[in-house]
Amino acid sequence: MTTLVFGHTSPDTDSTGSPLIWAWYLTQIKETPAEAVLLGTPNTEAAFVLRHWGLEQPRIIDNVDADQPVVIVDTNNPAELPTQINDADIRAIIDHHKLVGGLETKGPIDIRIEPLACTATIMYKMIGKHMAQAPKSIKGAMLSCILSDTLEFRSPTTTQEDRAIAEALAQDLGIDIPSYAADMFAAKSDVSSFSDAELLRMDSKTYEVGGKTFRVSVLETTSPDTVLLRKASLVETMPKVAEEDGADQVLLFVIDILNEEATLLVPNDLTKSVAEKSFSTAVGDADAVVLPGVVSRKKQIIPNLAL
Amino acid sequence: MTTLVFGHTSPDTDSTGSPLIWAWYLTQIKETPAEAVLLGTPNTEAAFVLRHWGLEQPRIIDNVDADQPVVIVDTNNPAELPTQINDADIRAIIDHHKLVGGLETKGPIDIRIEPLACTATIMYKMIGKHMAQAPKSIKGAMLSCILSDTLEFRSPTTTQEDRAIAEALAQDLGIDIPSYAADMFAAKSDVSSFSDAELLRMDSKTYEVGGKTFRVSVLETTSPDTVLLRKASLVETMPKVAEEDGADQVLLFVIDILNEEATLLVPNDLTKSVAEKSFSTAVGDADAVVLPGVVSRKKQIIPNLAL
Repeated sequence: MTTLVFGHTSPDTDSTGSPLIWAWYLTQIKETPAEAVLLGTPNTEAAFVLRHWGLEQPRIIDNVDADQPVVIVDTNNPAELPTQINDADIRAIIDHHKLVGGLETKGPIDIRIEPLACTATIMYKMIGKHMAQAPKSIKGAMLSCILSDTLEFRSPTTTQEDRAIAEALAQDLGIDIPSYAADMFAAKSDVSSFSDAELLRMDSKTYEVGGKTFRVSVLETTSPDTVLLRKASLVETMPKVAEEDGADQVLLFVIDILNEEATLLVPNDLTKSVAEKSFSTAVGDADAVVLPGVVSRKKQIIPNLAL
Repeated sequence: MTTLVFGHTSPDTDSTGSPLIWAWYLTQIKETPAEAVLLGTPNTEAAFVLRHWGLEQPRIIDNVDADQPVVIVDTNNPAELPTQINDADIRAIIDHHKLVGGLETKGPIDIRIEPLACTATIMYKMIGKHMAQAPKSIKGAMLSCILSDTLEFRSPTTTQEDRAIAEALAQDLGIDIPSYAADMFAAKSDVSSFSDAELLRMDSKTYEVGGKTFRVSVLETTSPDTVLLRKASLVETMPKVAEEDGADQVLLFVIDILNEEATLLVPNDLTKSVAEKSFSTAVGDADAVVLPGVVSRKKQIIPNLAL
């Protein structure tokens, strides 16, 4: 049976590119037929990457059959995976997030989690000398995943390994990183076609803090004004999204990639309290607060969240 | 702060040797001060291995402080770890068991789980070229872990990698595998000093099957008669151990390493039903049943358990 390779729901570039990379490796090098699939529509940056490298968009699935062989990449969180995931035949997990708990496997399998910025970086290391056989599109996907997850090396999640591997890939491909990254980020910043609810859910993870459930949403953009001009209607949509998704509050961080700062919308006292306690800042009567230097949900937002 | 490295409770050779191997690697090669510790008294085989290679027995701990840096080896099961484990600062997990779920980490960490017979085999691969700097005692511990977990390559968990690495280590150390393994297994088989309750708990894991909780205990021995002569008092002790440990029944499999078979004690109808449904055998009125070829709890007992 063909092995399905997928990342998390609401696929970004890493969760779109890494399944393609690993499905190539399994099929072509390990002689194990595999297919990359997606758990949702790729975001605009991921769609740009697919077009740029001539990669066909993987088909979208919403569940997996029992005993279906699968490889999970870029997450180990059951909440970001099909509800039946523990009934599937999980063959491997490759990830760079903290261990959440909840996934179970029927037998011992290959699990590789490393504290790097990007799943594709781990894959590059695992594929090793076989990288020489990778087509340009696969190398391009790898480079794109690393530039995306590191925000072109600006994110504090960036390690020397991520950077060195991205630079080696760019040289090999003849890609100028600053100009290619600018194209990627411009694609990510084009959010005109999305509704407010879609924007709030596009890159969102759920966390519990002080007994409350928060949807912590980030929007990485080179054009924060485009988003902030929609502040009023975004704020109006937050209670609806929170209620539908079983959360108490949506926290929206608009990440300005180029200026390396986040703007957190502050629609109510609950959010004001979170903002002030988490980031040692004074909000006053403002309906938004700028957090200088904050670009990483994983390293700078989640570890500090307090209520 | 010194990093503590430990395996599971009721430490066998792999859970005694692997912490010593990894603490050596962290301290000497990675310049990260680390100490191997144990979550209980090592079994008689592990104690023999320590003596044979001149390794000091690590100190035994029964809990870890909050934020204590730790590396967990040879398990990912919270039930086999200190109760406060999720409050510790888990830095890495190296294991060869199925993912159980329940461990959580505060941030992304190094996790390496591979479907090999032995944790030490994975460590040998991770240490790579630095193995050249390992003292004889560390190489000896590695060889011992592999011979123990593979029952000298008899267990179906054995992979080509486990075997090749053990053989390379033995050649390097000038060790004759059959005679050294015989000494190890003789040490493991000397259970005269243990009470019946200690024997039932020595190498025991808890599983749920059909709504019942079983303590699945194995005793690997080259001298099964030594254990089977104690059958009456072992069976008498089972209800007490089960009750104290919150299980419905203890299943004791006496594994005959040399003849590659298991004897399951059958003290009551519940166990008889498990024996017949799990291993397609007829027990009749017997108080024990021999299961030819069965030597591995992981590969041959647990996947077949039925009620």
